[in-house]
Parts: sequence; C-alpha cells; structure tokens
Amino acid sequence: MATQHDHHKVMQETVARLAAGENLTSMCHMRWRGEPIPSQQAVAELINTCRALIFPGFFGDSDVNRINILYHTGIAAERLYWLLCDQIAAGLALATDCDGELDINALTERAEALADKFIAKLPSLREALEADVHATYLGDPAAISTEEVIYCYPAVKAITNYRIAHALVELDVPVIPRMIAEQAHSETGIDIHPAATIGRSFTIDHGTGVVIGATARIGDNVKLYQGVTLGAKSFDLDSDGNPIKGIPRHPIIGNNVVIYSNATILGRITIGDNAVIGGNLWVTFDVAPGEKVVQAKADNVLRFKQ
Amino acid sequence: MATQHDHHKVMQETVARLAAGENLTSMCHMRWRGEPIPSQQAVAELINTCRALIFPGFFGDSDVNRINILYHTGIAAERLYWLLCDQIAAGLALATDCDGELDINALTERAEALADKFIAKLPSLREALEADVHATYLGDPAAISTEEVIYCYPAVKAITNYRIAHALVELDVPVIPRMIAEQAHSETGIDIHPAATIGRSFTIDHGTGVVIGATARIGDNVKLYQGVTLGAKSFDLDSDGNPIKGIPRHPIIGNNVVIYSNATILGRITIGDNAVIGGNLWVTFDVAPGEKVVQAKADNVLRFKQ
Amino acid sequence: MATQHDHHKVMQETVARLAAGENLTSMCHMRWRGEPIPSQQAVAELINTCRALIFPGFFGDSDVNRINILYHTGIAAERLYWLLCDQIAAGLALATDCDGELDINALTERAEALADKFIAKLPSLREALEADVHATYLGDPAAISTEEVIYCYPAVKAITNYRIAHALVELDVPVIPRMIAEQAHSETGIDIHPAATIGRSFTIDHGTGVVIGATARIGDNVKLYQGVTLGAKSFDLDSDGNPIKGIPRHPIIGNNVVIYSNATILGRITIGDNAVIGGNLWVTFDVAPGEKVVQAKADNVLRFKQ
Amino acid sequence: MATQHDHHKVMQETVARLAAGENLTSMCHMRWRGEPIPSQQAVAELINTCRALIFPGFFGDSDVNRINILYHTGIAAERLYWLLCDQIAAGLALATDCDGELDINALTERAEALADKFIAKLPSLREALEADVHATYLGDPAAISTEEVIYCYPAVKAITNYRIAHALVELDVPVIPRMIAEQAHSETGIDIHPAATIGRSFTIDHGTGVVIGATARIGDNVKLYQGVTLGAKSFDLDSDGNPIKGIPRHPIIGNNVVIYSNATILGRITIGDNAVIGGNLWVTFDVAPGEKVVQAKADNVLRFKQ
Amino acid sequence: MATQHDHHKVMQETVARLAAGENLTSMCHMRWRGEPIPSQQAVAELINTCRALIFPGFFGDSDVNRINILYHTGIAAERLYWLLCDQIAAGLALATDCDGELDINALTERAEALADKFIAKLPSLREALEADVHATYLGDPAAISTEEVIYCYPAVKAITNYRIAHALVELDVPVIPRMIAEQAHSETGIDIHPAATIGRSFTIDHGTGVVIGATARIGDNVKLYQGVTLGAKSFDLDSDGNPIKGIPRHPIIGNNVVIYSNATILGRITIGDNAVIGGNLWVTFDVAPGEKVVQAKADNVLRFKQ
Amino acid sequence: MATQHDHHKVMQETVARLAAGENLTSMCHMRWRGEPIPSQQAVAELINTCRALIFPGFFGDSDVNRINILYHTGIAAERLYWLLCDQIAAGLALATDCDGELDINALTERAEALADKFIAKLPSLREALEADVHATYLGDPAAISTEEVIYCYPAVKAITNYRIAHALVELDVPVIPRMIAEQAHSETGIDIHPAATIGRSFTIDHGTGVVIGATARIGDNVKLYQGVTLGAKSFDLDSDGNPIKGIPRHPIIGNNVVIYSNATILGRITIGDNAVIGGNLWVTFDVAPGEKVVQAKADNVLRFKQ
Repeated sequence: MATQHDHHKVMQETVARLAAGENLTSMCHMRWRGEPIPSQQAVAELINTCRALIFPGFFGDSDVNRINILYHTGIAAERLYWLLCDQIAAGLALATDCDGELDINALTERAEALADKFIAKLPSLREALEADVHATYLGDPAAISTEEVIYCYPAVKAITNYRIAHALVELDVPVIPRMIAEQAHSETGIDIHPAATIGRSFTIDHGTGVVIGATARIGDNVKLYQGVTLGAKSFDLDSDGNPIKGIPRHPIIGNNVVIYSNATILGRITIGDNAVIGGNLWVTFDVAPGEKVVQAKADNVLRFKQ
Repeated sequence: MATQHDHHKVMQETVARLAAGENLTSMCHMRWRGEPIPSQQAVAELINTCRALIFPGFFGDSDVNRINILYHTGIAAERLYWLLCDQIAAGLALATDCDGELDINALTERAEALADKFIAKLPSLREALEADVHATYLGDPAAISTEEVIYCYPAVKAITNYRIAHALVELDVPVIPRMIAEQAHSETGIDIHPAATIGRSFTIDHGTGVVIGATARIGDNVKLYQGVTLGAKSFDLDSDGNPIKGIPRHPIIGNNVVIYSNATILGRITIGDNAVIGGNLWVTFDVAPGEKVVQAKADNVLRFKQ
Repeated sequence: MATQHDHHKVMQETVARLAAGENLTSMCHMRWRGEPIPSQQAVAELINTCRALIFPGFFGDSDVNRINILYHTGIAAERLYWLLCDQIAAGLALATDCDGELDINALTERAEALADKFIAKLPSLREALEADVHATYLGDPAAISTEEVIYCYPAVKAITNYRIAHALVELDVPVIPRMIAEQAHSETGIDIHPAATIGRSFTIDHGTGVVIGATARIGDNVKLYQGVTLGAKSFDLDSDGNPIKGIPRHPIIGNNVVIYSNATILGRITIGDNAVIGGNLWVTFDVAPGEKVVQAKADNVLRFKQ
Repeated sequence: MATQHDHHKVMQETVARLAAGENLTSMCHMRWRGEPIPSQQAVAELINTCRALIFPGFFGDSDVNRINILYHTGIAAERLYWLLCDQIAAGLALATDCDGELDINALTERAEALADKFIAKLPSLREALEADVHATYLGDPAAISTEEVIYCYPAVKAITNYRIAHALVELDVPVIPRMIAEQAHSETGIDIHPAATIGRSFTIDHGTGVVIGATARIGDNVKLYQGVTLGAKSFDLDSDGNPIKGIPRHPIIGNNVVIYSNATILGRITIGDNAVIGGNLWVTFDVAPGEKVVQAKADNVLRFKQ
Repeated sequence: MATQHDHHKVMQETVARLAAGENLTSMCHMRWRGEPIPSQQAVAELINTCRALIFPGFFGDSDVNRINILYHTGIAAERLYWLLCDQIAAGLALATDCDGELDINALTERAEALADKFIAKLPSLREALEADVHATYLGDPAAISTEEVIYCYPAVKAITNYRIAHALVELDVPVIPRMIAEQAHSETGIDIHPAATIGRSFTIDHGTGVVIGATARIGDNVKLYQGVTLGAKSFDLDSDGNPIKGIPRHPIIGNNVVIYSNATILGRITIGDNAVIGGNLWVTFDVAPGEKVVQAKADNVLRFKQ
Repeated sequence: MATQHDHHKVMQETVARLAAGENLTSMCHMRWRGEPIPSQQAVAELINTCRALIFPGFFGDSDVNRINILYHTGIAAERLYWLLCDQIAAGLALATDCDGELDINALTERAEALADKFIAKLPSLREALEADVHATYLGDPAAISTEEVIYCYPAVKAITNYRIAHALVELDVPVIPRMIAEQAHSETGIDIHPAATIGRSFTIDHGTGVVIGATARIGDNVKLYQGVTLGAKSFDLDSDGNPIKGIPRHPIIGNNVVIYSNATILGRITIGDNAVIGGNLWVTFDVAPGEKVVQAKADNVLRFKQ
C-alpha cells in the first residue's frame, strides 16, 4: 500500500535529518561514557536526599527512631556524596571550554573535594532552615504547628532548595545550583536565584509568583508574600546590544522587612531595616529604615452600579 | 592518601552530628512502627483515588465500562478507605499533645469512623464537582466540551482537591486537608485553604497565583481569574507579637460575583451578590450588591515615543 | 460488632451509588477496549519523547554520541509515532458526535496520517526552538550558556510544549494540544493556549503567571516577563447568556516587543512593533509602533514613618 | 586514538550484520503493530491471574474478604480475559501459514470467543485443583494443613499450570499452553506436557525432574515422586529420518497408581489400576492391575571396607 | 450483537460463581487487614536481606566498605526484623485453630520476641555458612576461589536458605520455614526440608534433584552430588489410610560421608561415619562406618553394535 | 518496658558483631566505588540483551520490523557493550591478586578490548544457535515449529547461555561465564560448565538434572535427555587431601551420539561417534563408535501381586 511506503519514507527521512550532525549544533549534548552530564533525575534525588538528611522522618524514609537514625543518616549521607560528585563534575565539565580535552580525572578529584565541603555544611544548613521554619510558623495565623509547616508549606521546600543551591554557589559549582532552584520553582512557583544572598529566619507566604533575582541581598527576619518580585529595572547592554552579565542590578532588603503580595521592587535600590512595602506596589526608589509604603487610597478606582 | 582519610573524617563527623539527638529538636519526626505518620505519597494516592472515583474513566484506571464499573468502584473505594484510615490517624496523632502516650487503638478507631463518614460523602462531592465542571465549561469561550474541561483545566483539579480537603476539615481532621490543598497548589498554582467555604458552581480561569485564605466565604456561581487574592489585610498580634490564630480575616464573597485577574481583595470585607471586580485592583472596602469596580482610566500611565 | 457491620453498609451503599448509571452522567468516560482515550501519562511521555528528539542528550536517554544518535533517534521517532497515533485518535474520538457509532478503523487511519505529518515537522520545530533558546540566552544577563538555558529555564519547556501543541492545532487535532499545554502550565506556571500564534525567537523570563489567550498573535523577537497576561477584556454572550466561542478577543503583539512583569494586556488591541510595556500596567488600548508605556510616577503611593 | 576508532568499527559492522535481512532468517520474529505476538511476560501474568482467581488470598492481591471478593474477582476476570484474547490470538497467528496475509479481525474474533470459553471453565478448574490439593495434603506425612500445601508445594503450582494449559489445549489453542507449562517447569522442575490427560486427585511429591509426555494418559488418584519419567521409548522416523509427529508413544497409567522416585516408564505401555512402581526402576512392559514392581535385592551392589 | 451480550453473560456469571461463598471453601484465604498473612514476596525479601547480612557485598547493596558497613548492616537488620515479625506472626496465625478469634496483640508480641531471637542467631549462622562455603571450595576441582563459590554455586543459596529456615524451625515458627526452603528448591532444584538436621561443613555439588526429608539427620563434612534422595521408604497409615505425621522415617548420615549422584537412600537407616555411597544406588540398608558401597560391574548392561 | 530495651540491645549488639571487621573475613566483598564488582542483576541483563540480539522479536523488545531492526540492534549492542565492560572488569578484578593495588584504568582498558571481541562474535553465535534450534525441532516429535522451540524449550535458553559463556571463557574472562551458566541452571535445571566444549547442532530434551562437567568435550549433532550426567569419576587429591584443579576428568562424546534419560557417564572415557547410550545407565567405560549400550532385561526387578 502506498500509505505504508510513505510512512516508512517519512520516518526514515525525518530520523536521518534529526540525527544529521549539521542539524544538531547547539541543540544536542553529546558525551562519551564516563564524562559526567547534568541530570534532572539525579538533581531531584539530590534534593530529596538533602531534605531527608535535614528533616529526618518528614521527608524520605519515614521509619526513623533513636536507634536507627545513625544508620539512615549514614546511608543517606553517602548516597548524597556520590550524587554530589557526579553532578558537581557535570557542572564543572559544562563550564569548561570545550575546545580542549576534558581532564576527567582532575575534574573528578575537584568534584569530590567540593562534595566533601558541601557535606560538612549540612549541620549549619539544618540550623538555618530550623530558623526559617520557626519564622514561618510564627508569621502565619493559619499555621498550627511546626510539623504542619514542614509537611505543608511550599516556602519550606523553596527555601530549602535555595539554601542547598546557594551553598553550592559559594563553592563555585556551575549550573547545578540553578537546576536545584528551578525544581523548587516548578514545585512551588517560587523562583529564587541561587546566587541571591538571604539572611536568617526568612519566610514567604503562599509564594506563587515570587521572583528573587541573582544579585538581590536580603537581611534577617524578612517576610515576603505571593507575587513579590525583587527584580532588575533595566540592564546595561554591551556593544552588541546584549545584556552585560554580572552587574548588581537587584534590590538590597534590610532586616525585619515585610513585603506584601504582588509588590514589585526593581533595581539596585535599598529597602531599609524594618520597612513595610504594601501589596501591588511598583517600587523603584529607596525606602528608608522603618518607612511604610502603601498604595494611595482608591482614587484610581471607578465604582458604579451595573 | 590524606584525601581519602579526610573524606572519611568528614563523613563520619557529619553523620554523627546530624544524627545526634541534641541537633534534631523540631527538625526530626521520629516514630515507632505502627504509629501513623503523614505521607506525601499516601496523600497523592488518596487524591488520585478520589479523582478516579468521582470522574471514572477520566482519571485512574481508564478501561471503564458498564460491566466493570462496579468492580473498579469497589476496589477503589476500599483502597481509599485504608488510605484515609492511615492518613486521618496520622493527622490526629500529629495534633495530639506529645507529652502523653498515644493510645493508638483509640486513634485508629476514631480514624476508621471518620473514614466511613468521608466515604459516605463521595456521591455528594461528585454532584458538587459536576456543577463546578459545568460552570467552567459555560464560562470559557475557549472550552469545547465538558470532557475537555475535565481532562485539561487546572481549576478542576484544584477545586476537586479543595472539596475533598474541605470535607475532611468538616470532620475535624487535622493537617491532612492542608497537604491535599498544597498538592493542588503545587500542581496548578492555585492555593485554596481547605477551611475556606465555597458555594456551588465555582470556577477559576487559568488560575496561577490565586490565593483563597482560611476564613474566606464564597457564595454560589462565583468566577475568579488568575492571580486573584482573597487575603487578610492585617492580623492581630498577641502579647508576644505573634499573630493570633483563628480570627475571621478574609473576605466574604456573595453569589454570582466575578473577580478579574490579579485583583487583590483584602480583609473581612463583603463583596455583595452580582458584583464585578476589575483586574489588578486592590480592594479593601465593601462592595455593594450589583456594584462594578474597575480601574480608573489610564491616568497613571505615561506614554512616550522611544 | 455494630461498627463493622455499619462500615460494610457504608461501603456497599456508596459503591452502588457511585457505580449507578444515573449518577454517572457527564462525569464518567466509559469506553470499550480498542477505542482510544486521552491519557495524561501518554501525553507526558509524548512530550518527553519530543523533547528528547529535539534536544538529544539534554532530555531523555543521556548517553548520546555520534555513533548511536541514529539508533536513539530511530527508536524515539517510532515511539513518538505510536504515541501520536493513539492520542490523536483519542482526540478525534472525543470530538466526534457520540450519537453515531465510532468508525474506529477510519479514525485510526486518519490519526496515522496526521502522526506522519507531525513527525515530518520535527526538524523545523527544532529550528524554531533553537532560535527561542538563543533569544533566551541573549536576553538574560544571568544566563551563562545555552546549555544552562536548555537545562534550567522553564520558558524553554513551556515554549517547547507550545510549539508541539500548536503544530497539532495546525493539523486540527482536538483536545490533545490543550493537554500538552496544560502539562507545561503545571510544570512552569506559564499558560499558553496552543491556538495562539507566536513568531520566532520568543522568550519569557521567570514566567510564573504568564497567560496567553487562544486568539493572541505574537510577532518575532518578543520577550515577556513573569505574570504578563495577554487576555480577553470581555466576550460576547449568546442568547442564553453564555460566551460565544471562537471570536478573536486577545491582543496582537508586533515584532521586537518587550512586556515587563505583571502587565495585563486585554482585548483585541494591537501593540505595535518595537513597543515597550512597563510592569504592572493594565493596557486596554492600542500602542503605537515604537511607543513606550510605563506607570506614572509614584503619585498613587503613600509613604510614612511607622 | 586507534582503539576508539576500532571500537566504532566493530560496533557498526556487527550491528549491520546482525540487522541484515539475510542473517535473520528463522531467528527473528518480526511483526507489525496490532499483530499479536506471544509474550513471556503476558503468559506469566496470565498464570498469576488464574492463580489469584482460583486461590484467592493465597496468590495475587492478598486483602480478600467477603465484601471485596466480588470486586477483586471481577477485575481479575476482566484482566484475564484481555490477556487471553491477546495470547490466544498470538498463538493462532503463529500457527497460521505465513504465506497468506493474516486476517487480524477474524483472528481476534476467534480469540475472543475462545477466551470466553476458557473463562467459563474456571469454576470447574478450581474444583479439580481443590481435589489435587486435598490429595497432596493426605499423601504427605510432612504436610501440616491444606494452607501449607497451597503456599509451599511446587506440585500445586505445576498442576495448576498443567490444568490451565490443558484447558487451552482442549480449545485447540497453539503454542501458549506449552509456554504455560514451561513456566511451571522452570519454577518447579516438573515438566508436564499440556496435551497429556490427567485425572482427578493427582499429586507429585518433591517433583524435581518429573517428565510427563504429550500422549501420556493418567487416571484418578495417581501419585508420582520426584524424577519420575513417563516418556517415549522410541519414535518412528519418516523417510527423512525425522520423528513422525503425533503418534501415541507415552504410557497409560490407571487409577490409584503410585510411582516412586526416579522410576522411568517408557513407551505406550499400560500400568494397571492400583499398581505400585518402585523407585529407580526402568519399566518398558505392561504392569497388571494391583501388581507391585520393585527393584530386586541389592545383588548389583558391591560393598567393601575402604 | 449477540456475541457482546454473551460475553457479558459469561463474565458476570463466572465472576459470581467464583466469588460465591459456597464455592470458595478451602481455596480462599480471607483475612481482615491487620491480620498477618504469609507472602511469597515478603519471604523472598526476607531471604535476600538475610543473604545481604551474612554475605555483605556479594548479595544486596553492593557498595560496601569499612565506613558504611555499619550503616548498611543496621538498616538491613531492622528491615529483617520487621519482615520477620510479620511473617512469623502470619505463620503463627495460620497454625492457630480458626474457631477461636485470633488475639492479634498476643500473636504480634510473640512474633516480635521470636524475631529478636532469630536476629541474635545471625552471627552464628554466618559462621556455619562460612564453613559450608569453605567445604564447597575445597571439594570441587573446578572451583577457583571462595568468591566464585559464593557468587555462582547453587548449593550456597540452598544451604543458606536451609540454615535460615532451620533456625526458624528451632523457634517453632510454622509454615514460613517451608516457604523459605521452597524458594531455594525453585531457584536451585535442591529440596531440603527445614526440619532436617545438618552438621557443619556441608556441601552439595550441582544439586539439581537433591531431596532431603524432614526427619533426616546429617553429620559434619558431608558431601552430596546431584539427584541424591534421603527419603522415606514407606510410612505408617492411620485408621483412615492416611499417613501418620511426625514419625522418624528418613536416614541418619554420619560424619565425612560422600554420596554420589542420583543415589537413593531410603528409610530410617544409618550410614556410618566416613562411608562412601556410589552413584545411582538404591540403598535401604544400614552402611557401616568406613564402608564403601558401589554398583556392581556392568553385568546389567547389554552392549551391541547397531 | 524491659522488652523494648532488650530488643534495642539485641539489635545493636548483633549489628555491631555483624559489621565487625574480624567477623567478616571471606564472607564480605568490600569495594570502593569505581571498582567493578560482579552483579547478578547485571549478568541477568547481559543475558537478556544477548538473547534479544540473537533472537530479535522472540526475546526483549517485541515490536521489531524491517525499518526499526537497525535501531533496536544498535541500542542493544551498545547496552551489551557497557554491560560487558563492567562485568568483564569485575571478573578480572576478582581474579587479581588482592595484595597489590588494582590498576583500574588498565583493567578497564583490557575489559573494553575483550568486550569488543565478544561483540564481534555475535553473528557467529547466532549461526551456531540457529543450528541448535533446528536440531531441537527435528529431534522432538512434539515440536510444532521452530518458533515454538525458541519460545518454549528450556534447552534453547540453556544452550544460548552456554554459548555466550563459552565465548567469554575463550577470551579468558573469569567468574562471569560461570554466573551466566548458573542463571541458566536455575532457570532450566540444566547445568553446563562454560569451559566444556560442545559442537554444532546440540540439543537436550526436557533437560532437568543434566550436568556437563568443565572438561567434557562433545561433538556435533549430539542429543541428551533429562538427567544425563557427564561427570568426573574421581579426582586426584594433592598432598593436603584437596582435589587438584584443572585435570581432564570428564567424558569425550563423539558426533551423532544420543544419550537417554538419567544416564550417568563418568570419567575421561570416550563415547564414539554414532553411539547410543540407554537410559538410567552407569557408564564408566569407553563405548566404541556405533555401539549401542542399554540396560539388561529386567532381571533385577521383582514383580508381585499386592
């Protein structure tokens, strides 16, 4: 039958075109076995293993008790170590100039040293997250217990991923921190760039639509509501008209600041300690310590009977 | 090699610190076997089983016909019963004062009685959701059929989870309803607190960023667009400066109200029947029945040639 | 024990009510084996297979090299073909008037012909997505490489799903394109209706909360930020008070337009080439080519010391 | 490096040779989708589903009680029906002369009719197996209960598979019965040809190495021990020197016969009712009803001090 | 169509008959949730967990090193404990007179105490198996290393299961030991009744078809070849003509005995220390210490030219 | 409670004893990551991949047709290559003197070269197996087609594993060939040592209990029945009383020989071309070409009426 023949032709020609070297260019990530490659699955497991180590019993293998917690922690720490080694090496490989040959042994050794450094940070990561959980519990009248907060609040997941990813940024690991952050973004709608700096006892309510840019700096005891953007107002272009990378362009937020829902804070401005930013605001100016900024009364609203 | 030895030291010391009792405090949920514990996986399966019972053929095991629907329904109902028993007991256990010993037998009996009560509500849950689906179909010019609505509309998933979770709230089940709601929040970006009260024929278009607070009350035939917040304006603090829990603080929305995208409705205000709230508004005042509130003309907009 | 007996009664009665024909109505999708039915799982696999074919090595089976790429592409293309046949047939069946009997053979043949046509479009889909990836890389100062963009940026996932879904819309496949779009919506918070028309080198930053309506038309080199809505201002009702389906009601966006975060563009208006729309704006008027529209200075903001 | 290049050459050349039509001949089973093909996995699931239907609670889904047994049975029967349809059609297709085109629709209809016939036999299969289980329990001093027999005795598995496979042989289903028998052979070391005829209350002790040929006929209440062969002594060759297929060539065993371990019974001989055959014997002659045949005293044994 | 209707009738009638109480009798194992039930899967996992604890690195989780062996052992021991509790309780429940109600709490407590006792035996089980492995290595000229023996020799698996099962027999656990033994029988063709008594440094070569009866007693340093039966010659019947259970009826084998392939040793006879039994023999008489018994020269063989 | 405390003590003490270095000795296979280790799972996958490459459509991925066989073969060949590399390296590592440090790079390179050599043998392995399948079909009057033979006959599986394992023996790969052979032994009850030499067109009927020793040599067109042993009569001991390894000690079987069920052929004897060995025989003497050896008439049988 003509149709059957046509089908074969379509399949063979399309397969040949898709597999042809000249059509692959930047869209294909080839590798040889042994060379590490970033993996969404491995990053997901890495996140879950960190969560299980930091919040034992809440995430991961649930049957934790005083006798077996040493064994569970040991197994999980080792699993995490090897996941880190692979993914850190993958990140380093991706950031390496591809013209030269990769020295996989050197890469692996460097990744193993960095993985050890990350592992050693886990106890302080847990301390930081305990403060975040406590702040979340205190800040929400609907929260019943810290257990409920850990089980149910998306902010806990997003901030956990941020603190893991930021610890890797501090170790100069490329790409992988961003993947960790994006998994939280997908899971919670909260998009925190792992290079941002965030102080202790941080919390976000509801969270969907929150964006925190790469060069933002946030103090202690800060609380954000859903839809808040800490973004760039504009960015300088280079001579080709492309954005210049790496320039500080996001806000600095002081200690004890509250920013209500859907407020947009743009540019390298400073929001002083103890300031309060009302909802739905568009803020592109510095706010003094202790200042409160809210929308003017509803003079921009028309009301009429239908 | 020194490195190998250092690695072992890092691992052993970190594992010991993470597993030490004094470093676990509120971050670890220990239990003994037999004691129920909330589980994200079990809650996910509970949701999927409810969806398959309410919308047979659309969700879950697809090969449903007139002969086998009794068998499929029977198996699914029994699976749901045991999932409910476990998770309800887990919620009750979590809410129990931890100083006393848990009476697991009493807990289990109470959970089983509540599970039966929930199961008995399933037919009326299906009726309510049928009205929601119909309202969604009628309200969207892009909707082609109710089948498309059930297969594709995130609002159906979010409202299904809400109605399941709210039925559990009515049975005074702690924590689990919130977990059910958060899974919809993660899946759809729609965050409906399970304690909110919502009438019949409710629908949400697009939905990302919608927030409905715990004490909100919504009438029949209400339609929301993406980004709408029904939130609290402020909340009273107790003598320690922490929010007082349980006070009505979210809006009351009448029947037949439409609220357009990104409108923020805050505080214990009342939006009367048949009112219309325009997009991007910040509403902290009562709106009369039949009233229409929209943004003033674009007098706050600057236009210029670049 | 009375309780045990009561439990059985609850179970049996509820199962009987849920399985009764008169209670199923539009909430149950029955079928006979052989008849295709839309499947969330199959659609998810379809998306993953497309991603692996378009971005080999980045998505799907990672060990791709110059020798085996032909084999991997061949296997994936065949898997995609059969997934498409099933899901296209399922979409066609759903859109068929249920009064008549389905002619499954005719349906299957039509679906196979459409699947071949979709397969043949894959090389041009890859070209289009390559331009989108490049635009995303150039447009974000935080982006380090195109590899990072493909691995980490939710916009790449959302636009990939859009371009796949839109190609199916062009082949008049019902329902399935919408399911593809909704999976991206769930994953990224970006809601692009598959019937919308979008030009080359399109990009979205952050993305959560973006909504692009069914009749929107977007030119080349357009960039959107998070929370942007291209929506309908209102829609005509028919004599029953229900929306009339199919009327153009969303904006037309020219080439080289930038729309900043949370801007709401409503109705069948035209945003001219090279225009810039500031954040948080509510735009229901035409904007001329090259025009820049921004929020007026903060005259609607109250600032005071606490 | 030369090695890398050589590796590619080896791989590409070997793949090409293995995939070349002229090297495939009888070693490759090609098919087009839709055409059924025998599947070890499907046959394994078919066996497990039969076991769960015949011995509910012992095999398959364990939580069976008086309320849910109807649902479990209904689901399992339907699953079995579709597995049977596929595998029976696959068997029929395999036995069809390949020169002509397969009429898949006719094949499918015939398979569905045969599947219905098999399903209708299930209650009588259970009755027959209940007698086998009872005979096994009574015949072994080590057996503690019929439950233990069903859980632990390989003979129960082998005889169950035989009775299933033989029921399919009676329906003239090709190939699949043999696959069912071989799975029991692999699991238990008991090799019963599905075409053999076996009466009621049959049992085998230990069982490893038992062989029962295709034309063997066995009466009621027969007990075999491990290593017993009911085989062919010789078989006629055709003019090409190959065995002529289909001639009766295996023993006829009467009622109430016991055959002890490792006895070899060969040829179309008759072992009369109530006969007893001792262990390790080589029997190629008829044995009268009630006769007992044992090894002569140990006159073929040499005993000496080492 | 008549056929469709007939199909439904067949299905519904057969399902009803299979699920009817009067047709279930001894073929159905019903239970209520919470009541333990033997599980082939749980027994398989129990065996694998024991193997991993006794032979770490060879079976189970392979990445064992000096640092993590404590963690792996701890996790596996706990997993084993709970598997044992469930399966021991299931065995005890099965052996309980069904007329009375099960006291599940008492059953569970007894099972937990027995599980602890079994766990405490693990180190001595490992010692015994180490001697068996060493004997196997020394006894086979084809064995290259003890590692090869552990990885490849079916006798190691069969004897491991026997020693596990026998330890449970010593604790009076019903049914489960037999299930453990039968899994080895299925895997290796070696059928050792768990009630048999076997000394140290035991080994079996090849093994298929070996049968060791329930009351057999075997000394130290015994070696068997494939097909050896240590069986019962006959057994006494009770007044109903059924075998009387529990009477010693299998051989006693001394220390340092070798029994060659396919020898059949029957009845409560004694094979003295250091005896050698030749292959294919049928032995129903006592053999003195140091005696060697072999087949007489081939006077029962006919040789002729074809 | 005392019991709880006792349980903890049992667990902790047993875990400590099992994990203690001095109790591990030869029973623990430790390794560091990167060092290859033999894996039952990997060997099972290796076998399945070989079967799918040799018999496409019969084993492995079933949807094979003329278009996609190249892709399927390519993917499978590559998967096989990496499985071989790992398992060959694991075998080499195990056979390496453990006192010195492993040079993993050298090991890996050698394994890769051997894997290439094995891959290149696949086409000739398929040819050999095609002859075996054909011989099996011709030799069994119950065989209906070569397809049935490939799907159902355990001999095909056992001989396939033997030919794969023997090809690895020819490449001097240690341990892994034995693991491959033992998986067939477990699956079929046929135990062929991979070092044995077997000619073309080899077949085994039924097969349970067949043993073929390491130094056996078998000609072309040989057929064995179940329970046949080609074993060693005795073996020389070294000065410690242990068997001397590597001496030829198993039979040499000529071309066109048939050996009937349960015959035992022992020692380095020669069975000449075209000889026939009857069932149940014990043969320790040379048999001339064309000679037929059978059991004498039943003069060792006692027959009496019961």
